[in-house]
Amino acid sequence: MTYSVAVVGLGAMGMGAAQSCVKAGLDTYGVDLDDKLLDKLKAAGAKGVAKNANDFADKLDAVVLLVVNAKQVNQVLFADNGLAAKLKPGTAVMVSSTISAQDSKEISQKLTNLGLLMLDAPVSGGAAKAAVGEMTVMAAGSAEAFAKLKPVLDAVASKVYNIGTEIGLGATVKIIHQLLAGVHIAAGAEAMALAAKAGIPLDLMYDVVTHAAGNSWMFENRMKHVVDGDYTPLSMVDIFVKDLGLVNDTAKSLKFPLHLASTAYSMFTEASNAGYGKQDDSAVIKIFSGIELPQKQEK
Amino acid sequence: MTYSVAVVGLGAMGMGAAQSCVKAGLDTYGVDLDDKLLDKLKAAGAKGVAKNANDFADKLDAVVLLVVNAKQVNQVLFADNGLAAKLKPGTAVMVSSTISAQDSKEISQKLTNLGLLMLDAPVSGGAAKAAVGEMTVMAAGSAEAFAKLKPVLDAVASKVYNIGTEIGLGATVKIIHQLLAGVHIAAGAEAMALAAKAGIPLDLMYDVVTHAAGNSWMFENRMKHVVDGDYTPLSMVDIFVKDLGLVNDTAKSLKFPLHLASTAYSMFTEASNAGYGKQDDSAVIKIFSGIELPQKQEK
Repeated sequence: MTYSVAVVGLGAMGMGAAQSCVKAGLDTYGVDLDDKLLDKLKAAGAKGVAKNANDFADKLDAVVLLVVNAKQVNQVLFADNGLAAKLKPGTAVMVSSTISAQDSKEISQKLTNLGLLMLDAPVSGGAAKAAVGEMTVMAAGSAEAFAKLKPVLDAVASKVYNIGTEIGLGATVKIIHQLLAGVHIAAGAEAMALAAKAGIPLDLMYDVVTHAAGNSWMFENRMKHVVDGDYTPLSMVDIFVKDLGLVNDTAKSLKFPLHLASTAYSMFTEASNAGYGKQDDSAVIKIFSGIELPQKQEK
Repeated sequence: MTYSVAVVGLGAMGMGAAQSCVKAGLDTYGVDLDDKLLDKLKAAGAKGVAKNANDFADKLDAVVLLVVNAKQVNQVLFADNGLAAKLKPGTAVMVSSTISAQDSKEISQKLTNLGLLMLDAPVSGGAAKAAVGEMTVMAAGSAEAFAKLKPVLDAVASKVYNIGTEIGLGATVKIIHQLLAGVHIAAGAEAMALAAKAGIPLDLMYDVVTHAAGNSWMFENRMKHVVDGDYTPLSMVDIFVKDLGLVNDTAKSLKFPLHLASTAYSMFTEASNAGYGKQDDSAVIKIFSGIELPQKQEK
């Protein structure tokens, strides 16, 4: 019994997911616009790679979408010559990009109309966890969709949350998760900037916080980049402009106030407008003036 | 060789510190206004307990102050009939309350004038770590003060940061740590409140976050109280009204903007004014209206 899956979007998370599918013995296809990423996945053992899925769409049992946003999900699936119309009825589409609940519901409706299954299944864990098949998946959808995607979920995730059957709940859980992730990065930046202003060595401040109750996963991971003065983007400032934008859209649609997340959104937006949008998201610290930050040491 | 230490302020942290000193074999004295706390420490093996340190002040090698704020530190040490004037010259005073750098410097000056040593040594770790002698201490002061307090530091702390000789740096590091702790609690509350509004079960949201990159030490510890509907105060809302107030005072004195910490301060202050000041600090979530939070299950 072969099982064929295509991963669309071979960024940090998508590449990890696709490689995990290869390792799990699935017939794995990769789709991206970047030749280098296609070559990398091919070398890792993919059955096929291409800039679109036209040549293997009718072979697939499942599709995993890890493109950047809802606009790209819609383009991949429903544009002229889009993928959805080429899939066999009953193929399962796992939508793992971070998108709004509303977008998730609209995409689900269109897929259902074509006889396709959808799992509203955002992911978390970062590139490192994705690379070893240990992503966290927050999934909502029908029992049928969960069952059809089981080989993929087994391959890519160490933990799968079944949030319910209602499409959109997965998206909402991910967005609330991103609220915390974004606020924690911005708070880490604010704290380290204040430490710099107060004359506290940042490596010492980092050491104290990471051994005490003020720590967060994001502080420990991202403020290391500030201590090292290395803003090579693992995840960019502009991702949090997008994700905290979705957080605030969600709050607006629910008529709910978000004191901290709206502030963090402004901080990332300011960083992006100041020219740091493509740097590591820890570069949000650069919105603070009048401080001296560590510089990268050449090795 | 006996070594005598008095712990003044037997709240959650002070009681743990005093018990750790007893366990380490130091002659330990406890001072508090609450008879129950004095009885508890006496039963744990303290050499003496009292509402003030008059009867044993001249026996002490060291004093640890774990009262609530700078006002109390000053009262204990420098009020009429205060402790500082009764201590032997060379006694070391470890000031471990969370206070401003400015207060720390003023207290140090007064102690120095009396021939006493001071360590500017705030602590972190919570009641659980304090109880087992594993606090984190962020300390600034002279080598002489560090040396004199070594038996106490060995007894109460698993980690001691030597931040430098300049009194005030310890206070500042602690205050920046509290910035993160306070923002993380408020962000956790904001996220959980949004989840409640969106119809996500809070125990599931808690489970997702604590297994993903959105986690923080405070989210994991405090949002459990929200999930359980149990606002029994381990640390109160009013503590963060005070500590985030100190954070903002520090920023003002350094002329530095704090986008998130100023917002978190407003959230805790709102919670306090709404009547939740003496509840667990996770009760900051009660500032959000129009949501239903878990209720405590009677056992």
